[in-house]
Amino acid sequence: MIETGFPTGGPTLGELGEREVIALIRAQAPSPLNGDDAAVLTQAAPNSRVVASTDMLVQDRHFTAQTTTPYLLGRKAALQNFADIEAMGARPIAALMAVSAHPDTPAKVLEELAHGVGEMASDYACELVGGDVTGGDYLVVSVTAMGALGGNRPPLTLDGARPGHRVIAHGRIGYSAAGLALLQAGVDIPPQLEPLVAAHQVPELTPGRGVVARAAGACSMTDNSDGLIRDITQLAAASGVGIDLASNALAPDQLLVQAGTLLGVDPWEWVLGGGEDHTLIGTIEGSAPVGFRSIGAVTKKQGVRIDGSSPATDTGWESF
Amino acid sequence: MIETGFPTGGPTLGELGEREVIALIRAQAPSPLNGDDAAVLTQAAPNSRVVASTDMLVQDRHFTAQTTTPYLLGRKAALQNFADIEAMGARPIAALMAVSAHPDTPAKVLEELAHGVGEMASDYACELVGGDVTGGDYLVVSVTAMGALGGNRPPLTLDGARPGHRVIAHGRIGYSAAGLALLQAGVDIPPQLEPLVAAHQVPELTPGRGVVARAAGACSMTDNSDGLIRDITQLAAASGVGIDLASNALAPDQLLVQAGTLLGVDPWEWVLGGGEDHTLIGTIEGSAPVGFRSIGAVTKKQGVRIDGSSPATDTGWESF
Repeated sequence: MIETGFPTGGPTLGELGEREVIALIRAQAPSPLNGDDAAVLTQAAPNSRVVASTDMLVQDRHFTAQTTTPYLLGRKAALQNFADIEAMGARPIAALMAVSAHPDTPAKVLEELAHGVGEMASDYACELVGGDVTGGDYLVVSVTAMGALGGNRPPLTLDGARPGHRVIAHGRIGYSAAGLALLQAGVDIPPQLEPLVAAHQVPELTPGRGVVARAAGACSMTDNSDGLIRDITQLAAASGVGIDLASNALAPDQLLVQAGTLLGVDPWEWVLGGGEDHTLIGTIEGSAPVGFRSIGAVTKKQGVRIDGSSPATDTGWESF
Repeated sequence: MIETGFPTGGPTLGELGEREVIALIRAQAPSPLNGDDAAVLTQAAPNSRVVASTDMLVQDRHFTAQTTTPYLLGRKAALQNFADIEAMGARPIAALMAVSAHPDTPAKVLEELAHGVGEMASDYACELVGGDVTGGDYLVVSVTAMGALGGNRPPLTLDGARPGHRVIAHGRIGYSAAGLALLQAGVDIPPQLEPLVAAHQVPELTPGRGVVARAAGACSMTDNSDGLIRDITQLAAASGVGIDLASNALAPDQLLVQAGTLLGVDPWEWVLGGGEDHTLIGTIEGSAPVGFRSIGAVTKKQGVRIDGSSPATDTGWESF
């Protein structure tokens, strides 16, 4: 069943006041590291390096009450930062969340948001260790994730792709954009298409795949946040290489085709330009590690191609 | 000379687009650690622990174009996070900045903001290593700071104050609130009171004082962000102790008295309830470390007092 909507009843942030709101948030995502001026992270493995990333989600730009719930938003806000940590080949170890919201916002909204962030953190075996709450006219959620990069191998940077590498992917491609299109179309969404909506609300990744890929010898990685072609183009450019994608590895599946038919949209647009799937996309010499599939090859010839030709679309998310 | 106001001309964020805006920001605060999915922090000293804190600043709540400039806002946003790191006895090692702004915002605003953050980071011998930019209706700035806590001594937590400790402070108290009051009063500000305004726009702390205090044996610390009495009350409560402040160590100086006379305000209100000075306030057995002064004593008897009596005000910043 598709869940959307924000709670409307109960005491507001303004009625409860800052301290009580913070207490509600901490109760939803308890951590012994939280509660001081700054969180002292549990010591990672010796010689591990710390990795950090941040993302900001703004109401009516990245989400609306018509497309998600605070709980799902919290899960997604955490996940997309964890995907950035994983895309370096690192393991998330902590998250911070800063939130701005109107004083008339029901406290339940921040409670459920924190529950979502805390639960996703827990899925990744880490914790929400601190944050900030403040007033504003609408909801803004900024999550920062920190990770540990153990061992001596280099991180999985954008510039590590080399000709001859296999291009590998973990996670859905195109589902998030299709799910959003279904939610925005105002149509009755057939139950069999609900996985697309669920993938938009919270993309599904298996925790630890970035670490696995690094251990298996992957050399570069990113996540599909702004659009497949756009993000792969960035990786290819940073590495000074080209990438040939295989259409049969990317071809829209049954669900995407059905959604495309329902909405009169070519599902390839979702696959190539959709973004927000947070698919881990990397390159490796040799075979794809567990959980990854092969979607193409790195070439000496610059540019991104599908079966040797320019992709039909290279649109993607634009912040402004 | 007092500087306020936001730039209004030149290309907007929407005109330049996300990538070019990010390039402008990175040019203002260059770091080789920036530019990938996540920043891999330079390895801190062996056995050091990582400390993290985040703060969100919202236009027309925490700042306005009438009280600051983007450059000063950037300096302050970084400093107040670094103060949280220092208040643990740790050394800032990196900052991340997420910004939401209206697409019509002149790009110069984010450029100057990034310049301020980058410059303050540089004052603390660290770097702006990553971030996020996104659209919105008004300016929201979320800075996350990370620090390194070396050695085996415990961090300077809120619960480390013990009866018999001396209460110590580094930095001004009351200046920020006085400076804000001057800016908001719409009066001609006499040149000799400009230091109060400057202290509101960017509080002045000497980098490294938190580390010095920890090395000298301090046991607890916080920073005066919400109001002196409010923050000290929180520290005392977390430690299960009381605190007796000495009025002669807190008494408004010449500048505060002059500003109070000008505006018809009792300057003690700024000292006790003002906040945003980010004064480092801690407790230590023995004498005050270099850069700190003594402002009171920790007692067995619970509560916060001034010369043995309840303070006249315990108001402070409230987020909602």
